[in-house]
Amino acid sequence: MNRILKTKQVFRIFYHQIAGIQIIMKKTVLAVGSVALDDIKTPFGERRNSIGGSAIFFSMAASHFTKVQIVGVAGEDFPRETITLLQKHQIDTQGLSIISGKTFRWGGVYHDDINIRDTLYTHLNVFADFQPILPDNYRTTPFVFLGNIQPSLQLEVLKQLHQPEFVALDTMNLWINTTHADLMKVIALVNLLIINDDELNLLSGESNMLAGLQKIHQMGPPFVIVKKGEHGAYLSYHNSLFFTPAFPVHQPTDPTGAGDSFAGGFMGYLAACATVNFLNMKKALIYGSILGSLAVEHFSIDGITTLSRAQIDKRYQTLRKMVLI
Amino acid sequence: MNRILKTKQVFRIFYHQIAGIQIIMKKTVLAVGSVALDDIKTPFGERRNSIGGSAIFFSMAASHFTKVQIVGVAGEDFPRETITLLQKHQIDTQGLSIISGKTFRWGGVYHDDINIRDTLYTHLNVFADFQPILPDNYRTTPFVFLGNIQPSLQLEVLKQLHQPEFVALDTMNLWINTTHADLMKVIALVNLLIINDDELNLLSGESNMLAGLQKIHQMGPPFVIVKKGEHGAYLSYHNSLFFTPAFPVHQPTDPTGAGDSFAGGFMGYLAACATVNFLNMKKALIYGSILGSLAVEHFSIDGITTLSRAQIDKRYQTLRKMVLI
Repeated sequence: MNRILKTKQVFRIFYHQIAGIQIIMKKTVLAVGSVALDDIKTPFGERRNSIGGSAIFFSMAASHFTKVQIVGVAGEDFPRETITLLQKHQIDTQGLSIISGKTFRWGGVYHDDINIRDTLYTHLNVFADFQPILPDNYRTTPFVFLGNIQPSLQLEVLKQLHQPEFVALDTMNLWINTTHADLMKVIALVNLLIINDDELNLLSGESNMLAGLQKIHQMGPPFVIVKKGEHGAYLSYHNSLFFTPAFPVHQPTDPTGAGDSFAGGFMGYLAACATVNFLNMKKALIYGSILGSLAVEHFSIDGITTLSRAQIDKRYQTLRKMVLI
Repeated sequence: MNRILKTKQVFRIFYHQIAGIQIIMKKTVLAVGSVALDDIKTPFGERRNSIGGSAIFFSMAASHFTKVQIVGVAGEDFPRETITLLQKHQIDTQGLSIISGKTFRWGGVYHDDINIRDTLYTHLNVFADFQPILPDNYRTTPFVFLGNIQPSLQLEVLKQLHQPEFVALDTMNLWINTTHADLMKVIALVNLLIINDDELNLLSGESNMLAGLQKIHQMGPPFVIVKKGEHGAYLSYHNSLFFTPAFPVHQPTDPTGAGDSFAGGFMGYLAACATVNFLNMKKALIYGSILGSLAVEHFSIDGITTLSRAQIDKRYQTLRKMVLI
C-alpha cells in the first residue's frame, strides 16, 4: 500500500514539473479525538444532545479544505444522520467505531462572560475504554491531528503511523497536571503544539508568553500555536512570531468546539497546500481563526457545516483588511 | 495671534504646492490631565514618588513626534528636574501650574496577574481644585487630548479652544457612572473617544464589542479606539475596523500610564502627519501601541523618556512583520 502511494506521488510530482502548471496535491488529514453528545446552556440559548467532541469539530472544519479521516468512538445513541453528514463532507468514517453503550456526554453552562464555563457532568461512557486503532489505509496519512485525549493514547496513535509528514498536538490542563511524563513524550515527537494561553503558562511554568514559548520549543515542537480565544492567536517558530486577531463576531452563541474548529481550519488548509512552510502556516492560522469564529456563532457544528469556500474566503479577506494599512 | 498663525499656515501650504515637495507641517498637541506622584508596587519591584499622571505620560510619549503643550497642576513637592526634563522634550510647560500644597498622589499594588490592581489610597491634594486655564498661545492649538479628568473640566477646556482640528477624549468608569450627562456632552463634541474594553461595555450597555461600538458612534465620535491592553487595540470608523496587536514584552514591569502613553503615541504621530485620514490613524494606532509597550517595561516614564525615533520605528517594523504574510 505504502509503495503504491509513493509511486503515485512521484508520478504526480513528475507530471507537475513537466506541465509547468501548479497542481496542488491536497494531502489527507487524520484526526483522533473525542466524539460527544453535549448538553449545553449559554446566555443565548440551550441545546441538548448537541453533536460535539474534538474529532467531530476538527473533521468538519478541515473538510472544507481537504479529505479527512476520523478516529474515535461513539455509542449506539450517536445519530446515524451525523455519520452520513460527515461522509458527505469527504470525511472517511471507517475509523469511527460505533460500539455498544452510550456516547461520551458533557454537560456545561457558560456564564454571561462566555469565556467562563462550569462543567455540570462528564460521563465518559464508551469513551472510557477508547483504544484508537487505525484502519490500514490511515497509517500512511501525512497530516495528523492528535486531539485532546490521554497522552498515552496519543502515543499509541503515533506508533501506528508510518512517518507522517506533519503532526499537530492538542492537550489540556488535566493531562499537564496528571500525566505529565507521557505528555512530554508526545510533545517531543510532534511538529506543532496547539494550546491556549492558560495551558501555555501551566505547561511552561512561565507567566510571560515569550518566556513560555521559549520553554515549549525546547521541549521539541518547532511550531507552537497559542490560542487566545476572542483575542486572536499566535504562531511561534524559532524567533519569529506571527499573529492574527480573531474575527469579531456579533454574537458568540456557543464557544464549545471553537478550539477544535480552529485546529481543523489550520490543519485542513495546510494539508491542502503544496508545501509546509512558515508562509503557508501563517495563512493557515488565519483560516483557523475564521473556522473558530464560524463555530462560535452557532450551537454544535451548525456554523461550520453548510459553508462554501467562498464564504470562508470572504471572511478571510475581511480579517486581513483589518490589519493591513 | 490667531491671524498670524493662519497666515503662516497658508504660506506653508502654498510653498508646499509650489515646490512639489512634501513638507509636513507638524502640528502641536495640547494635553490636559493629571500630574501625579505615585507609590507603586508590582510583582517586579516597587517605586515611591513615581512621576505619573495622564498629562505627564501623554506628553512624554507624544513629544517623540511633535511639540506638546501641557495643562495640569502640581504641588510644591513636584520635582523641578522633571519639569526641566519635559522642557528638554519640546514640551511647553507654561500651562503646568505649580501651586502651594502637595501633588496628587495615588498608591496602588498590582497583582501577579498584572492586569489587576488594588488602589491603596487616592489623595487628590492640589488636583481637587484643578481649574484648567489655557495660556493664550494654547487656544489655537489644532490637536487636543482631553485626559481622564472630570467631564465638566473637559468641557471647560473645549470652551477655551478656538476650533481645534482634532480632539481626542479619554474617560473612566467613575465618570461614566457619576457624571454621565456631562460626559455625554463632551463625547458629542470630540472626534475620537479612547476607551478600554470594560469602559466600552459600561458606556454602551453592550457586552459585544461590535454592538458597543455602534452605540458609541451614535453618541457622536466618528472615531473610537478600544484599548485591550496586552491583547491589542481596535480603531473603529463607521463600518471599518482596524486592529493592531500589542507589542509583546518580555517583562511588563509597571502598567501605570500605559494607556496615556498609548494615547500620546497615537496623537503625537497623527499631529505630525500632513493630513488626518484613516490611513494615518491606522499607523498612529500602531505607534500608540508601541509607546504603550515601551511604557510598561519600566516604572514611571523611564521607558518612554530616553528614546530615539529609530528605536520606536524599529519596534514598529517588528510589530508590523508580526501580522504580515
